[in-house]
Amino acid sequence: MHERAALSLIDSWLPAAGDDGAVVDDLVISTDMLHESTDFPTGTTRYTAGWRSVGASLSDIAAMGVEATAAVAVYGSPSFEENALRDFIDGARAACDLCDAAYVGGDLDEHAEFTVATTAIGSGTSPVSRSGATPGETLCVTGTLGRSAAALELFEHDPESANSLFRFEPRVTTGQAIASHAGAMMDSSDGLARSLHQLADASGCGFDVDRDSLPIDERVYSTTTDASEAFEHAVHFGEDFELVFTTDDVGTVQTVASVPVTPIGTVTERGVTIDGEPLPDRGYSH
Amino acid sequence: MHERAALSLIDSWLPAAGDDGAVVDDLVISTDMLHESTDFPTGTTRYTAGWRSVGASLSDIAAMGVEATAAVAVYGSPSFEENALRDFIDGARAACDLCDAAYVGGDLDEHAEFTVATTAIGSGTSPVSRSGATPGETLCVTGTLGRSAAALELFEHDPESANSLFRFEPRVTTGQAIASHAGAMMDSSDGLARSLHQLADASGCGFDVDRDSLPIDERVYSTTTDASEAFEHAVHFGEDFELVFTTDDVGTVQTVASVPVTPIGTVTERGVTIDGEPLPDRGYSH
Repeated sequence: MHERAALSLIDSWLPAAGDDGAVVDDLVISTDMLHESTDFPTGTTRYTAGWRSVGASLSDIAAMGVEATAAVAVYGSPSFEENALRDFIDGARAACDLCDAAYVGGDLDEHAEFTVATTAIGSGTSPVSRSGATPGETLCVTGTLGRSAAALELFEHDPESANSLFRFEPRVTTGQAIASHAGAMMDSSDGLARSLHQLADASGCGFDVDRDSLPIDERVYSTTTDASEAFEHAVHFGEDFELVFTTDDVGTVQTVASVPVTPIGTVTERGVTIDGEPLPDRGYSH
Repeated sequence: MHERAALSLIDSWLPAAGDDGAVVDDLVISTDMLHESTDFPTGTTRYTAGWRSVGASLSDIAAMGVEATAAVAVYGSPSFEENALRDFIDGARAACDLCDAAYVGGDLDEHAEFTVATTAIGSGTSPVSRSGATPGETLCVTGTLGRSAAALELFEHDPESANSLFRFEPRVTTGQAIASHAGAMMDSSDGLARSLHQLADASGCGFDVDRDSLPIDERVYSTTTDASEAFEHAVHFGEDFELVFTTDDVGTVQTVASVPVTPIGTVTERGVTIDGEPLPDRGYSH
């Protein structure tokens, strides 16, 4: 069974598992596992790995629009070198500091493949789910699209820039600021296209995206050969950890958010389209 | 660097990481990673794997003497079979049910080796640390010692009994009942001997164990060839996830605990001994 089919099955067994984070009382919990062969290209520093791993879970907390309380990580590796551990923790802590979350350690595991498991805990009484989008609302995204795709192209020749692009800011502060104005929200970790299909499924609605409005990261253009490839990297690749959300008050959202918010389309009755043409449910499965 | 040395180093960088669970405000957080080559012997069912993985993190919450709120798991596997996933989740949920914790899912990861990362969240205002033992207190342990060592011997010929022994009850209810009467507490996941050395380091004290009082599980005797091997399995092997704690009121503890509590020695000024002879800091590193 494919990972996505298995995840759908699990959501049917455990309804709490179907959103970016699971809600238990006033807590929001999210956990992720990243590993070398699929998540950390050659050249990824341990500092970046710590930042990005913890950041992935914090991004889920951001997508629920709540405060981030703390994060932990398990560092699984064939060996434990002091400098590598120190760099990993410094990176994890830096990502937490950006979100006012405490990084409180975790565990070590002697593991054949470098593997990191992270969990972030959030706190808030009104988390934003994926299911609250209403036709007529405006579809928005934070930041730019395609950073991680661009980073992947850079690892071989310019690892410093690649690492820098890989260290994204989890949008926790912005998620909290947006929360009371958002209908539905999730993060774009599976790519914009796939995120829209997931929001559409959860909310029972559709989306039409305005292609020209997409905030494609400028570095996507310098790492791709033509507009079609750039579009693919920005819309289908994913791992950008931006917030994708709906709102009926773009003006206020743009005022309260501490990062750029771009309106990119509208919530419709059904179907996920771009300039009226179908936008396929295709992305990179992590 | 060995795992234990690395963990000590991390504790010096991140003081919150030095106990069974990290304390953040009123929350206690613990995370673990288990994987096939070292934690799940051939014959371990997915039901047992789910139970035991989540149980390991719940046991850390128990060791802090607080309520268990919720647990999550990442299921990393080369493939996702419906029955295996269902069994894993049923096992994880059964362990949570025993502790009144909500099992709220987690994530999947396509991973070369079957690997599970779990996190449990506890809640309470007065967690019990490893550092509160005082000379003169009585040293106690819950349940019996050596279950997991006995299970390992049984996997080849009697996998059903082995799986059953591998599914331990996380002592969350007992941990909470004991908490207000305990000086210091931790779980015995690294073995009794190693746990005592860790408690002694954290509390600045020592212990003298009364060898004849040790509650060695009867199945340890049927899976070992002599008393010396049985002692080794019960005291050094570990992974029993029992509570090891100090108290000045054994009578009350035995009354409030819902499982057997055995006094096994006393807190001393320094040194870890058994019948007055040194008990080496040796165990099984996970």
